[in-house]
Amino acid sequence: MSRLLLNCDIGESFGNWTMGLDAEVMPFIDCANVACGFHAGDPSIMRKTVSLALKHGVQVGAHPAYQDLQGFGRRSMTYTPQEIQDLLHYQIGALDGICRAQGGRVGYVKPHGAMYNDMMANPTQLRAVIQAVAAYGDLPLMLLATRDNSAAQALGDEYGVTLWFEAFADRAYDHKGHLVSRQLPGAVHHDAETIVQQALTISLGEPLTASDGSALVLQANTLCVHGDNASSIAAVQRIREALKSA
Amino acid sequence: MSRLLLNCDIGESFGNWTMGLDAEVMPFIDCANVACGFHAGDPSIMRKTVSLALKHGVQVGAHPAYQDLQGFGRRSMTYTPQEIQDLLHYQIGALDGICRAQGGRVGYVKPHGAMYNDMMANPTQLRAVIQAVAAYGDLPLMLLATRDNSAAQALGDEYGVTLWFEAFADRAYDHKGHLVSRQLPGAVHHDAETIVQQALTISLGEPLTASDGSALVLQANTLCVHGDNASSIAAVQRIREALKSA
Amino acid sequence: MSRLLLNCDIGESFGNWTMGLDAEVMPFIDCANVACGFHAGDPSIMRKTVSLALKHGVQVGAHPAYQDLQGFGRRSMTYTPQEIQDLLHYQIGALDGICRAQGGRVGYVKPHGAMYNDMMANPTQLRAVIQAVAAYGDLPLMLLATRDNSAAQALGDEYGVTLWFEAFADRAYDHKGHLVSRQLPGAVHHDAETIVQQALTISLGEPLTASDGSALVLQANTLCVHGDNASSIAAVQRIREALKSA
Amino acid sequence: MSRLLLNCDIGESFGNWTMGLDAEVMPFIDCANVACGFHAGDPSIMRKTVSLALKHGVQVGAHPAYQDLQGFGRRSMTYTPQEIQDLLHYQIGALDGICRAQGGRVGYVKPHGAMYNDMMANPTQLRAVIQAVAAYGDLPLMLLATRDNSAAQALGDEYGVTLWFEAFADRAYDHKGHLVSRQLPGAVHHDAETIVQQALTISLGEPLTASDGSALVLQANTLCVHGDNASSIAAVQRIREALKSA
Repeated sequence: MSRLLLNCDIGESFGNWTMGLDAEVMPFIDCANVACGFHAGDPSIMRKTVSLALKHGVQVGAHPAYQDLQGFGRRSMTYTPQEIQDLLHYQIGALDGICRAQGGRVGYVKPHGAMYNDMMANPTQLRAVIQAVAAYGDLPLMLLATRDNSAAQALGDEYGVTLWFEAFADRAYDHKGHLVSRQLPGAVHHDAETIVQQALTISLGEPLTASDGSALVLQANTLCVHGDNASSIAAVQRIREALKSA
Repeated sequence: MSRLLLNCDIGESFGNWTMGLDAEVMPFIDCANVACGFHAGDPSIMRKTVSLALKHGVQVGAHPAYQDLQGFGRRSMTYTPQEIQDLLHYQIGALDGICRAQGGRVGYVKPHGAMYNDMMANPTQLRAVIQAVAAYGDLPLMLLATRDNSAAQALGDEYGVTLWFEAFADRAYDHKGHLVSRQLPGAVHHDAETIVQQALTISLGEPLTASDGSALVLQANTLCVHGDNASSIAAVQRIREALKSA
Repeated sequence: MSRLLLNCDIGESFGNWTMGLDAEVMPFIDCANVACGFHAGDPSIMRKTVSLALKHGVQVGAHPAYQDLQGFGRRSMTYTPQEIQDLLHYQIGALDGICRAQGGRVGYVKPHGAMYNDMMANPTQLRAVIQAVAAYGDLPLMLLATRDNSAAQALGDEYGVTLWFEAFADRAYDHKGHLVSRQLPGAVHHDAETIVQQALTISLGEPLTASDGSALVLQANTLCVHGDNASSIAAVQRIREALKSA
Repeated sequence: MSRLLLNCDIGESFGNWTMGLDAEVMPFIDCANVACGFHAGDPSIMRKTVSLALKHGVQVGAHPAYQDLQGFGRRSMTYTPQEIQDLLHYQIGALDGICRAQGGRVGYVKPHGAMYNDMMANPTQLRAVIQAVAAYGDLPLMLLATRDNSAAQALGDEYGVTLWFEAFADRAYDHKGHLVSRQLPGAVHHDAETIVQQALTISLGEPLTASDGSALVLQANTLCVHGDNASSIAAVQRIREALKSA
């Protein structure tokens, strides 16, 4: 993977509730992180989402979560490492079942929301996730690129799991290469030019400026983009074009 | 499949609630119909259930249901044929994910409760189930043996799906080869001798006596047995021995 | 209740998913049918919805449903009459709890979706609903006005439950005074003038023209209006003004 | 409340799954902490549970929890203080609705599992719970008696909420008057004589011996007992008799 893939959370509708402009963003991305029913998505939404991804040649990724529909999987919950693995196998398999029925397959795994954050904050949980992915089969795991990816990489190597590190074009980073909390001013970039520029900088492996002013190089394989609204889709489109030209 | 396989609903616990004597019945059966989380079972229960089945060399079958935990999947619900297929792909896939993580695979599909009854009563729904199973991959479908299996068999042939017809040793049949309703007297056999005898009769392809006195031959590949309590497990054990001797 | 109250389904968001323009429609209605968590709504959505209703002096009605979040309570499900009553007491009570915390109370009950349709189609279920409402306390029940309300009225009288019959300004009626199925052409009025005219006709107790051309007088206490989108809200506003002038 | 009331978690079945010997323990207790559907209990189970309590003249308490059926409400989850209040109002109200239909009323509130533990560990959450109970109406709140109840008491006084402090006869205490973790040896008393003796000691306001050997006096209004199995029910019966004689 030499170029920077664009990944996007998708299939986040549920039943009669619609969320996200999936059809609009799909033409511009490489990887669709598809909700698996525990924080969003239901079997029928998942079928439509996978169908749309396959039509556009977009890779289908499992986007598993804690079981918390009301909280959209964003609430931290106390699970044992074994339970984390069970959650992952169930949800990856469920999406794989939906894919198989359409001639596709799950192509990678990216945990969602609190499961993602807890995995990045807690090495025991990261190990559980990597173990689960290894046991399922030959799938890459998507996780956050930070200043130093070596600890995660060592765990991936231990279990033979390929890691895809992701970066954000619209978020500020602190000196450790963690995302600046959304509670703080300047955490999210809203200016399209800034966003496209950050995407290019990451793509070229050049240093960003962290929130403390230090230089930060992120080794990233993929960029997380958003399909929530018209302006985020316009940004994705501009990033796509900028990366192509570069 | 020349001999009569014994199949049993299993893995029907949920969270902290236990149901069924799974460990006790597993040694005596061939096929475990494993709940997939929509009427019973959760990812962790499913992992334990699959582990137990694999340890005993028992085939793991997906036992998908309508989404109704409180009603244990026994309430009829209005789903479209497409939604039925989505439910099946999600649940078969989820169990397959749990199996893969332990080196196993789902071996067949048997719908549960109201989904099973609606499939037997409604050809449109049976077609949806068979289509779903065909689209998933090369799995047999388990369904009710009746006096005349030809309509179901024709549908199975149309989609290239192997059908496993199941019979009951502890239930009375009407002249169409349908189960006598549990509301009616004599619907369920409680005498162990009667149960074992009916199992043998079915196994030999000899006629049962239907509730109207007519002779009824059931072409069955498998017998549904129960692991609810000590006496049902004793019956399974006796059926297993009787079939071996025969 | 001499004048025609305007009632509207409301509070149909769930977790992170938004549905309906509740804040926009609330100023124009008298009665808010608030989802109680089984088909839509969650405790926090319910709190916000009740707060909005109280602010506008709008009566809060319980809008209970079958337990089916994915199907939005629109799938028929097999419940016993006793289970229907339990569902009602739980959901009315839950909304009442949310109301009490803000100094309000539930003012009436209107079943949602399939529970509403099944109640209108099945006298046993209507009896169960009326019994449940009677047992809860002194609340009116909202149900469909048809050509002949006498059977429902007799049941209401038997249990001492006040009935509020509702009519629709934007739907065509058949000769029995039932709504023409949405599957059929002409079932839904889209022209604002037609909708306002039908509201006025119902309000004055004058006859509508049923789908077979016959005259149809509906004895209605309330009119069901919608807050889904800008044009439905414009219609509500026009109905409100027309009824005031009349 | 001069004498020590016996309270017990009850109504913890769900759908087809049975848990606890509710009918056996009910005759010996004063207060039934009834599950409200979020960690256990469903509307029909709740109706049966309330009916049983009313028949025995036992007070019905709401036993609300985080929304986590699979985890039985024992997993900590991140809720805001406002969301905690919403959860409480919904569940207390739901149980109150079930009670009203039978001529009863909810008599007090005792949070369950992780909601209980988080409330005892986190003053912000205790405040949210007390505020919620105050806003609902005139109900006491049950919480853990520790060496020093004054901080909790001050919060209760601030909102005008009566507090019922509960103690355990079958658990060891540390020097702060917190329960010794179940992970540690000696945390749970299994000997009936020890349990009855501890109940009497607490009842008389005499000191227990904490795990560090220090004397510990618990100011308790109620004792938490268990109805899980035959031996716990035998213990309740013995405690009941011992308290009567004392």
